[in-house]
Amino acid sequence: MRKLHLLVFLISILSVEAQNVSSPSKTISLNFKLSSDGKPTYSVSYKTKPIVKESSLGIVIKESKSLENNFRIDSIGQKSFNETWQPVLGEQSNIKNSYNEMTVALSQPSTDRRINIIFRVFDEGIAFRYEFPKQKNLNYFIISEEKSQFNLVGNHKAFWIPGDYDSQEYAYNETKLSEIDNSKLDLNNGIGVKTIASSFRVQSPLMMKSADGIYINVFEAAVVNYPIMHLDVDTKNFGLTSNLVPNAIGDKAYLQAPCVSPWRTIMMSDDAREIVSSKMILNLNEPSKIEDTSWIKPMKYVGVWWEMHVGKSTWDYAGSQNAQNAADGSLKPSGKHGATTENTKRYIDFAAKNGFDGVLVEGWNVGWEDWFGNWKEEVFDFTTPYPDYNLKEINDYAKSKGVKMIMHHETSGSVANYERHLDRALNLMKDYGYPAAKSGYVGRIIPRGEFHDGQTMVNHFNFVARRFTDYKLMVNSHESSRPTGYSRTYPNYIAAEAARGNEFNAWSVGNPPMHETILPFTRLLGGPMDYTPGIFEIKMSYYDKTKTEQVHTTLAKQLALYVTMYSPLQMAADLPENYERYADAFQFIKDVAVDWQDSKYLEAEPGDYLTVVRKEKNGERWFLGAITDENARKTEIKLDFLTPNKKYQAIIYQDGTDADWKNNPKSYAIKTIEVTSKSKIKLNLSNGGGTAISFKPIN
Amino acid sequence: MRKLHLLVFLISILSVEAQNVSSPSKTISLNFKLSSDGKPTYSVSYKTKPIVKESSLGIVIKESKSLENNFRIDSIGQKSFNETWQPVLGEQSNIKNSYNEMTVALSQPSTDRRINIIFRVFDEGIAFRYEFPKQKNLNYFIISEEKSQFNLVGNHKAFWIPGDYDSQEYAYNETKLSEIDNSKLDLNNGIGVKTIASSFRVQSPLMMKSADGIYINVFEAAVVNYPIMHLDVDTKNFGLTSNLVPNAIGDKAYLQAPCVSPWRTIMMSDDAREIVSSKMILNLNEPSKIEDTSWIKPMKYVGVWWEMHVGKSTWDYAGSQNAQNAADGSLKPSGKHGATTENTKRYIDFAAKNGFDGVLVEGWNVGWEDWFGNWKEEVFDFTTPYPDYNLKEINDYAKSKGVKMIMHHETSGSVANYERHLDRALNLMKDYGYPAAKSGYVGRIIPRGEFHDGQTMVNHFNFVARRFTDYKLMVNSHESSRPTGYSRTYPNYIAAEAARGNEFNAWSVGNPPMHETILPFTRLLGGPMDYTPGIFEIKMSYYDKTKTEQVHTTLAKQLALYVTMYSPLQMAADLPENYERYADAFQFIKDVAVDWQDSKYLEAEPGDYLTVVRKEKNGERWFLGAITDENARKTEIKLDFLTPNKKYQAIIYQDGTDADWKNNPKSYAIKTIEVTSKSKIKLNLSNGGGTAISFKPIN
Repeated sequence: MRKLHLLVFLISILSVEAQNVSSPSKTISLNFKLSSDGKPTYSVSYKTKPIVKESSLGIVIKESKSLENNFRIDSIGQKSFNETWQPVLGEQSNIKNSYNEMTVALSQPSTDRRINIIFRVFDEGIAFRYEFPKQKNLNYFIISEEKSQFNLVGNHKAFWIPGDYDSQEYAYNETKLSEIDNSKLDLNNGIGVKTIASSFRVQSPLMMKSADGIYINVFEAAVVNYPIMHLDVDTKNFGLTSNLVPNAIGDKAYLQAPCVSPWRTIMMSDDAREIVSSKMILNLNEPSKIEDTSWIKPMKYVGVWWEMHVGKSTWDYAGSQNAQNAADGSLKPSGKHGATTENTKRYIDFAAKNGFDGVLVEGWNVGWEDWFGNWKEEVFDFTTPYPDYNLKEINDYAKSKGVKMIMHHETSGSVANYERHLDRALNLMKDYGYPAAKSGYVGRIIPRGEFHDGQTMVNHFNFVARRFTDYKLMVNSHESSRPTGYSRTYPNYIAAEAARGNEFNAWSVGNPPMHETILPFTRLLGGPMDYTPGIFEIKMSYYDKTKTEQVHTTLAKQLALYVTMYSPLQMAADLPENYERYADAFQFIKDVAVDWQDSKYLEAEPGDYLTVVRKEKNGERWFLGAITDENARKTEIKLDFLTPNKKYQAIIYQDGTDADWKNNPKSYAIKTIEVTSKSKIKLNLSNGGGTAISFKPIN
Repeated sequence: MRKLHLLVFLISILSVEAQNVSSPSKTISLNFKLSSDGKPTYSVSYKTKPIVKESSLGIVIKESKSLENNFRIDSIGQKSFNETWQPVLGEQSNIKNSYNEMTVALSQPSTDRRINIIFRVFDEGIAFRYEFPKQKNLNYFIISEEKSQFNLVGNHKAFWIPGDYDSQEYAYNETKLSEIDNSKLDLNNGIGVKTIASSFRVQSPLMMKSADGIYINVFEAAVVNYPIMHLDVDTKNFGLTSNLVPNAIGDKAYLQAPCVSPWRTIMMSDDAREIVSSKMILNLNEPSKIEDTSWIKPMKYVGVWWEMHVGKSTWDYAGSQNAQNAADGSLKPSGKHGATTENTKRYIDFAAKNGFDGVLVEGWNVGWEDWFGNWKEEVFDFTTPYPDYNLKEINDYAKSKGVKMIMHHETSGSVANYERHLDRALNLMKDYGYPAAKSGYVGRIIPRGEFHDGQTMVNHFNFVARRFTDYKLMVNSHESSRPTGYSRTYPNYIAAEAARGNEFNAWSVGNPPMHETILPFTRLLGGPMDYTPGIFEIKMSYYDKTKTEQVHTTLAKQLALYVTMYSPLQMAADLPENYERYADAFQFIKDVAVDWQDSKYLEAEPGDYLTVVRKEKNGERWFLGAITDENARKTEIKLDFLTPNKKYQAIIYQDGTDADWKNNPKSYAIKTIEVTSKSKIKLNLSNGGGTAISFKPIN
C-alpha cells in the first residue's frame, strides 16, 4: 500500500525576491533568489555549513532569446510530501519518500514566456528541475544548452571519470577538483568508442568529499526525453556547470511544452552511508507504469560469455571477424564458436544442477563476423541463429530442466537497425519463452553522429524498456547511457551495465581494487548494475601463459560483490568447470539472494571500503558483503541487525591469511559459526579482498 | 519467359590505355582511357557527334587516399547482353534490354587497391558504375564524394530544378546551362522543407537539348545503399560533376566491399520520343526479387484527400493544428474532420458505384494536431484511429461493397518513429485487409540532420518496400527520394510522388502548364508517379471566393494525364460531388486502364507537348493522352497503332473551342466517332489543354 501525506501551503509573494526551503529534519536548507538582473539563483547549506554557493540556473533556447535572466517571480509555492512505496524488486521492500518542495513560478516579461523551477529538499540532499508550462510563446523548442550551476565551496576530493559522450566505462580517478584534466589520462584502457570533447568535463554522479568531511554527490534523476548531463568543471573556483550531450548537429534537446527537465540532484551528508543508501534518485522518478508486475522476477544466471572474454571460444561462427568471407558464402565454422547447441546444453545442465534461474548465450545469432568497430548499419537481425545453434532444441532442453534462457541482443550501436527489428526479436522471445534479454551497444551509434548519451539514445533505451513491457519481458542493457532511476517507472528495466564492468579485467588494464568501492556511490545510485561478479580463475595466465591480465580482486571479494553490488539480476560469470573446482566457495553464490527485504550499510567510505548486510525478501536469511580497496582492512561488525533471540548459522567466506589480490588471489577460508544478534564478527580483508557471510536461522 | 543471349569476349590488354565500346546499333560510342596521371576518363559520341567530352571518374574515400588517379589498367573485358523481360506492371508487357558492356579493371599500385568501372552502352544511352571488388586494402569504407564528370559540349537548353537535399517538389526552370543559378529563384513555392546548399547545383534527371537538336538526359539508376546524386554545374564550361547528398555529419556513403555504386546514365537521341519511352533505367536495375507477384495489382482509387487540400475539411480531429490542446486531454472535434466513418462510407459508395478499386483516407489516425513542421519524433503510431473513425466498421463496409481501403502512413519525416512502428502498422493492414498504403514524409527528417536524399533515407525507402513485401503489401511513397527503377526489383513499390504533384495547384503558385510535359522526361524515368490527376473543379475560388489558386490546366487535360503520366496506381483526385456534376467527362476516368500491354509515344517535346497511346493489358482497348504547355496546339494523329481491319468506337474528350486553362478551363467537348487503323484524328489542344481518347473495338 502507498501511504501518502500531503500538505500544501501556497504563498503568493510577488514582492519577495528570496525564499528558503528546508529538509524535513532541517539539516539541509536551500535558498532561492533572483539576482539583480533577474537571473534565478540558489544556494544550499548542510547543518548551517555552506555546500553550494550562489549558483545560477537557466536554459538557452535555439533561435530564440535565452531563459537565463530578466525574470520576475510570479509566485512561490511550498508543499510537503511524505510517502512510503514498495518497489517491485529492490534493496528494501519499503522506500520512504519524504521532502519539502518549493515551486518558483517565473516569467520573462520581455518575451512573455514562463518557466517554473521546482526544488525538493530531502534529508539527504536537494533536487531541482525546470518546468515549462503550456503557454503561447513556448510550444515546440530546442534547448541549445542548460546552464545549471553547482558552485562548490572548496577544492574537494572527487571521484571522477571523463565527460565522454559515448562511454562511462572508465576507472575512477581520485583527485582534487583542481586536478581534474582529461588530457592527462592514459586512455589505453580497453574502451572501444571514446568521445571526450573537453579536458575539464566529467560525468555524473560526481562523488566528492570536502576537507571537513562532508560527502557531496552531484547527479540527476528521471532523465526522460532529454540528454544526459555532464559537468564542466571550473578547476580554479570549483564550480560545476551542466553540459548536455549534443545530437548529430549540435542540438541538445527537442521539447514541447508542457514538459519538464530531469531533476538535478545534490546529495550531502557527513556520513557516507547516507549517500550510498539513499533512495532519492528512485524517489524522484515516476511510480511504476506497469500494473501487473507479476512477471518481473529476480534472476541469478550463468552464461556462454566469460569463455569468449578469456579467449577460450569466440562470439563469431567463423572466428575470422571478417565479413568479407560472409558475403560470398564461404563462412566456415572455426570450431571455436561458443554458442553451440552442445555447449549451451552444458551450461543448462550446470544451471539446473546448481539452482540458477537462467542461462545467457552470446554469439548465438548471425552477424558476429563483422559486429565490431565498423559502424555498419545492418549487422544483426536478432532472429537468425548460426547453423550450429538450434533454438528449438536448446529451449526445449532448458524447459525440461526448469531453466530459462536469457536472450542476447547485441546491436553493435546500430540502434536504427535494432528498432526496426525489435518487434520481431521480441516475438521470437515470446515464441520460445525467454523472460529477459541482455542488450549491447558496443560501437559508434547509428543514426550516425548520435552519441550514446544524447537525447536520441536516452529515448531509445527508455523506449526499449517500454516495448519490452508490451511483451512482459525484462531487459538488461549494456553500453547504454547510465540509468537515473527509470527502473522505478519501468521495473522490467531490471539492470544495466553503463559503467566499467568486470569484463575489462579480462583483456585490459582492468579495474583497480577500489573500483567496486566507488560504484555504489556513483553508478548504482541510478539503478542496478549487471557487473558480472564471481570470477574464481582470477588470472588470465590460467588460460594462456603469456597473458598478464587479471581481475583485481581476491576470490572472497568476488563473493562479497554479490551483496555489495546490488542487482536483482546477478550473473555467476565464471566458467562451470572453474566453479566445480571451488565448490565450497561456489556455495555462497548458490545461496545468496538477489531481492531484498532490507539492506543496512554498516560501513562505507568511497574509494576505500564498503560493508553491507541485506535480508532476503520472503525469508529470514541475511547476507553480508564487505570489500576493501588495495589496502588490507580489519574491522569488527556488530550483528545487531539479526532478529533478537534467534540463533543463526553464519558461513564466513573470507580471504586466506596469505591472500593478496596480486600475488595470491585464490587463497580463501570458509568457516561456519553460530551467532546471535548480540554477536560481533571480526573481519580480516586482504589487499583487494573481501568477506561474504551468509546467516541462516537455526530452527 | 526471360530470353537471354549472352556473349562474352574478355580481352586482357594491360598495355592498351584506351578502349571503345558501341551500342548494339552503333549509334552511340563510348571511349575509355587513362589520363597521363592515371585518371580514368571517358567520352561519348552519338552518330559521330561528341556528346560528352573527356570526363574523369573517381571516388574520394574518407580517411584514406582517394580513388581518383595513379591507376593502371589490369584488364578490359567486353560482353553483349540481350534479353526481353516482363514487368509485373508497366507501360508495356515486354521490355527489351540490350547493351554492350565493357568492364575496366583498374588497380592503384601505390595503395594496392582495385576498382572496376563498368560501362554499358544501349541504343538510347550509356551507363557506368563503380565496382569495389573484395580485397585486402578496401573493406569497410566511407565515401566522402564521388567525382564523376559529365562534360557536355555546349550550352544546352536544360530543364532543371535546384539541387535541394530535401525536396524535388519544384517547378522546372527552362534555361541555358549557363543561366542556372538557384540564388535567382523565387522560393515562395509552397515547399515545406528546403535545403539548397549551392547556387549551381541541380537535380537529376537533368533533361537537356542541344542547339543541333540532340536530346540529352543525365540521371542515375539502381540507387541502392547509396545517396542520391545531384549535379554541380560549371556554367562556363558546361561540365556537370556528381554531388552526393551528405548525412548528418557530412559523410556520403558507408560501404563494404564487395559492392557497387548506382549506375550513372546519359541518354541521348535526336528523337525526344526515344528518351521518354526508354526503359534503360529499369533495365539497369536488378530483376524482381519477389517470386509470387500475384498480389501486386494495379489500382484506380478515390480518397478523402483533396477535400483537405481545398480547405473543405481538415486532417486533424480538432482542426487546431495545436497539440498543446492534445496533451491535457482537451482535444475536441471541430466538426470539420475529413476522415470520419460517415464521410468515408460516402467515398466507398462512390468508389463502388463507379468501379474504383480503392479508397484512400488521410487523417484517420491520431497525431495530426501537430504533424507538420515541428520536427517532432513521436507524432503518429500508425495504428490508433481518431474517435470518429471506426476502422472495423469502415473496413467491413468496404468489403461488403467490393472496395479495398488504402492505408495512409504519414511519418511527418520521423523515419525513426515509423520504422519502430512499421511491423505493427503492417499487421494492422493485414488484419483489416488493406492491400496498399500511401506513405508521406512531409517535414525535416528524423534522425535529425539527415536529408530526404541521403543514403540513410534511400535505404529507408528501399527497406520499406522490402518490409511491405514481407506482408504482401504495396506501397506508394510521397516526399520520398525520387525513384531510380527500384520498382523493377520490388514491384510492390508501386508508385511514388517524389516530384511536384498536382496538390501544389491547390494552395501555392502551382505547376505551370508545361510541368506535365517535362515530368515524363525526368521524374517518370525512375518509376511511376502518383501525380493525382483528375481535378475538375479547377479554380479554388469555387470553394472560397477569396482564393486565386487554380490548377494550371483545362478539364480535358486532366483526363489526358491518366494516359500521359504512367502509373499503375492512379487517383481520381477530385471530390465525388464534382465528378457527379461532370458525369460525361468522368466516364473517361472510369474507363481508362492503368496497366498496359503496349505504349507508343507519338509526339514528344519536353516543355512543349506529349502524345501517347497505350493498349490495355488483357484487353483490346487503346487510350490516347495528348497534352500541351501554355500554348495551344493543333496536330493530327495517325491511328495506325490500332489493329488493322478492326473497327473501333473512339470517344474523344477534348477542350471546348473556347477553353483556356486560365479563363475558361472547364470548357470541354465529347464526341464519339468510329475509326480504324487507317483513320487520322485532328487534335485541337487549347492553351494548357489536352485531349483524351478511348478506343474500344466494335464487335
